[in-house]
Amino acid sequence: MNYSGPTVFELGEIAALKLAVAKFVPVDTTLVGSGDDAAVIQVTDGRFVVTTDSMVENHDFRHELSSGFDLGFKAVASNVADVAAMGAKPIAIVVAMVIPGDTKQSWLEDFARGLQAACTQLAPECAIVGGDLASGSETVIVVTAHGHLAGKNPILRSGAKAGDILAVAGTLGRAACGLDLLLHEDSTLADSYPEHVEVQLRPTPPVLAGIAAADSATAMLDLSDGLSLDATRLAMASGVSLNLTGQRLFGFEAVLELAAQSLSSKSDRTYSERDWVLHGGEDHSLLATFPADQIPVGFRVIGEVLEAGSYPLMLDGVELPAKGWDSISS
Amino acid sequence: MNYSGPTVFELGEIAALKLAVAKFVPVDTTLVGSGDDAAVIQVTDGRFVVTTDSMVENHDFRHELSSGFDLGFKAVASNVADVAAMGAKPIAIVVAMVIPGDTKQSWLEDFARGLQAACTQLAPECAIVGGDLASGSETVIVVTAHGHLAGKNPILRSGAKAGDILAVAGTLGRAACGLDLLLHEDSTLADSYPEHVEVQLRPTPPVLAGIAAADSATAMLDLSDGLSLDATRLAMASGVSLNLTGQRLFGFEAVLELAAQSLSSKSDRTYSERDWVLHGGEDHSLLATFPADQIPVGFRVIGEVLEAGSYPLMLDGVELPAKGWDSISS
Repeated sequence: MNYSGPTVFELGEIAALKLAVAKFVPVDTTLVGSGDDAAVIQVTDGRFVVTTDSMVENHDFRHELSSGFDLGFKAVASNVADVAAMGAKPIAIVVAMVIPGDTKQSWLEDFARGLQAACTQLAPECAIVGGDLASGSETVIVVTAHGHLAGKNPILRSGAKAGDILAVAGTLGRAACGLDLLLHEDSTLADSYPEHVEVQLRPTPPVLAGIAAADSATAMLDLSDGLSLDATRLAMASGVSLNLTGQRLFGFEAVLELAAQSLSSKSDRTYSERDWVLHGGEDHSLLATFPADQIPVGFRVIGEVLEAGSYPLMLDGVELPAKGWDSISS
Repeated sequence: MNYSGPTVFELGEIAALKLAVAKFVPVDTTLVGSGDDAAVIQVTDGRFVVTTDSMVENHDFRHELSSGFDLGFKAVASNVADVAAMGAKPIAIVVAMVIPGDTKQSWLEDFARGLQAACTQLAPECAIVGGDLASGSETVIVVTAHGHLAGKNPILRSGAKAGDILAVAGTLGRAACGLDLLLHEDSTLADSYPEHVEVQLRPTPPVLAGIAAADSATAMLDLSDGLSLDATRLAMASGVSLNLTGQRLFGFEAVLELAAQSLSSKSDRTYSERDWVLHGGEDHSLLATFPADQIPVGFRVIGEVLEAGSYPLMLDGVELPAKGWDSISS
């Protein structure tokens, strides 16, 4: 992506930050915002939820595929998804950035616009309340997100019970399909399926569905590493087995079928919509379990919770081994 | 520093983290700790304080000068200092790390021991409640620290009033002196003044003094970039002038005099204890203003607060220009 104008280095950290921070919209829960040693945040009860996540250049993203806006948006989206996966409402975010000295100020401002756009679109009661800017040889983005529970219990991974229903809010496999499209040498492929590429570059986790699920979910987590790996984590934390219903996944696969055919026809390998749905990461959808009669709006049933058996995860009763992504070893 | 054994890469992220996290001591305010999408933290009133700060290899530290333990200790120390500078008590920390693939597991565990040691020594009611581990080409450490205010008002930079007294808790100039000792080619110099080197490698901010200052301080901040720069920030935020009393700084200078002489005698340049005291960063001491009759234990008077004049900062009535460190342009 091309960015013009002065570098952050030429402007200096403080001037650069002032211009970038000017794009942030304040919210009522920010009692003291950026500019002091720390921010002060109001919560509705005596508890807050906190999660942190990093994105590293050439490991988690490439500047030639993602704009500054995309990266800001995705950094917020992936973290508010973790807050929502606890059944909490995102209220405050701090951002620590490491950027190379030749980073353009216009990139930083585009990044800041992406941060704010994700807050506005996904979690309108959430604000960027502080941050840190440092220089290094590669771009690193670390977002720490906070939420409040409004008096409700947090939804952990460990509460699923045999007899519950397994359901998902959000997309499955689209981010992985989008990545395969972006990485293919024929760039017209990505242009043909913008709806999948978009989920990879700017995922839109179902934050409101997560908050609403706090009323009835017995367990919930953010699908960042793929359905098979994250479902296995939920099963093992809860001491249950999960059984996916193949037919319930057809709808998720159907929207990816054409992209898989197009990619396969232009490659030596075969792309499979089922592989994306079962194993693709980065959709940042929410996987949750509910009592059978209490499935909230926004969630679609994809399976059932069984007593712990030989396998933590099955597809139509047959073992489904977890395939996924270890952020250190990939 | 030499570390042996398998790399984090060889063990895999989850196994590596399990071994490192085993060193962390739980505290009562952690309602849900690491292992879920987010942690849940208890606060004493409906507010929490949050700050984030990064340390980047070859910009903020060098592996040949700092052990993993040192870096873990310093990362926590510098962040709990920011929490204490609001008058808040540190309660919860999350740590995002980027490390090269060849990082030894023994380094990561030493780093984790340093994180815990700083909590235990500086802020015993604070716990490491979550984190993120990713790989990259250089080591980046991002700590986000949280505190609670126990019903008190946060102490901002902007509350100093003419007639107040200016005071400091903690050391001045020792971290900068320690860095000059470490960087000198004659390594026996660093060995001769371990008490200064220690403040550079493992600063011990006066966290308890900061919490106690919440009862009477009118303004407070963490001295991370040096007295002249941080005092100028406080003066400008408060709309006042600060006048340092040279004689009050003698005590801080006296302990550095021998090290300055030793360094000067073995160098082409002259080292000055006054320069370290006035402009040296990274002590992570606390600078605060108080009504004249309410200076708490742990703080030493170093000057006075005047109506805003021609200069934000003076030394014995003469302009003292800020000299310091811009983390992007250095």
